[in-house]
Amino acid sequence: MIIGRVIGNVVSVIKDSSYNGFKLLVVQEMNIDGTYDDNFYISADLIGVGNDEVVMVTCGTSSRATEETHEKPIDSVIVAKINRLIFKDREVELE
Amino acid sequence: MIIGRVIGNVVSVIKDSSYNGFKLLVVQEMNIDGTYDDNFYISADLIGVGNDEVVMVTCGTSSRATEETHEKPIDSVIVAKINRLIFKDREVELE
Amino acid sequence: MIIGRVIGNVVSVIKDSSYNGFKLLVVQEMNIDGTYDDNFYISADLIGVGNDEVVMVTCGTSSRATEETHEKPIDSVIVAKINRLIFKDREVELE
Amino acid sequence: MIIGRVIGNVVSVIKDSSYNGFKLLVVQEMNIDGTYDDNFYISADLIGVGNDEVVMVTCGTSSRATEETHEKPIDSVIVAKINRLIFKDREVELE
Amino acid sequence: MIIGRVIGNVVSVIKDSSYNGFKLLVVQEMNIDGTYDDNFYISADLIGVGNDEVVMVTCGTSSRATEETHEKPIDSVIVAKINRLIFKDREVELE
Repeated sequence: MIIGRVIGNVVSVIKDSSYNGFKLLVVQEMNIDGTYDDNFYISADLIGVGNDEVVMVTCGTSSRATEETHEKPIDSVIVAKINRLIFKDREVELE
Repeated sequence: MIIGRVIGNVVSVIKDSSYNGFKLLVVQEMNIDGTYDDNFYISADLIGVGNDEVVMVTCGTSSRATEETHEKPIDSVIVAKINRLIFKDREVELE
Repeated sequence: MIIGRVIGNVVSVIKDSSYNGFKLLVVQEMNIDGTYDDNFYISADLIGVGNDEVVMVTCGTSSRATEETHEKPIDSVIVAKINRLIFKDREVELE
Repeated sequence: MIIGRVIGNVVSVIKDSSYNGFKLLVVQEMNIDGTYDDNFYISADLIGVGNDEVVMVTCGTSSRATEETHEKPIDSVIVAKINRLIFKDREVELE
Repeated sequence: MIIGRVIGNVVSVIKDSSYNGFKLLVVQEMNIDGTYDDNFYISADLIGVGNDEVVMVTCGTSSRATEETHEKPIDSVIVAKINRLIFKDREVELE
């Protein structure tokens, strides 16, 4: 999984009906040093997060292995809000 | 999912029969700053879009999780037309 | 899917038996400006193409969603010969 | 599969219930010369490893082909601790 | 599929039991000009190859579509030994 920061959301009127009811968020990928780079994903939000929150994203067809996304054409889902990253020599609070 | 802009379409006479009936569009990937880079995909259009429209694309085998693409050798589908991107400090209208 | 040009083929004597009967072609990926870069794939040919032809390639496990490749360890298949790319302001003939 | 080094772990309170019971580790990808680059993954630990250990990681939906991860939205799992890499002209001990 | 050269193997004592019996090789990816770059994979060997041999590797969940790897957490398998690459204007012998 990758870690990213929620920076926005997507508004879409015309869409495949399987997307009805999903909130689609813009997630910017985090670098290993805690900065953010230009990679971003549109991810379906399974847990209810908002702007600036740091999240864990599952990519690919594994995204469909949840009750909500089962059999849907979704390749990226937010599966967790990250509270803290614990490294050997430092901790990064993300709240 | 990724966001891109429709810039063209593909004409193919000889193709696997599973592609019959699909419109195949050329989608150029959008960068996080709203510019477009050189990455592009050929994506099956599920919703009916045209040149210059901004769309959301599902990649990989998740592309097959729709009624139309079920059991087909398709790894990229257009699943939504994007109307607006809402960031914390700005909105981008895409119509 | 991606677009590429057939530039060669692979000869293999010792291989997994599931590959028997497949022609394996070397496909060089096309850039958005019509040039070719250094990315290439070995793709199973489902439609019968030859050197210099421009083709559409499906990647990943979607490659297995055809009658010929069903249940086989194949991650890249040639699913169409491309005749023409139609952009808003130009057409590219590929024959 | 790729090789990486465990450099930390993730603390998450709000998460999809399918993640309950999984330890999520931060794995930094190894380069071919034994250095480590900036790519990293959050991987579910199936075998019990700790910081500084070198591990093998399976990515994508293959990650779900274990007893523990079956039908879960997980795209990266640690499947082995690497003890040694044996090249033609050198061996790299990783313990 | 991609082409690579076997440059070593992996020794692992603690591993997911699904890996028992698999030889895990280090495969360095080949460039289109026949040189080798820094990308490498750990791939399960299905056919019995050794150092310096040039092989074809299937990636992703397609790797599980063989008798040996069915239902296993494996995302890269060696499916063929490559004997020759035939381009329009040259042949590359790989033995």
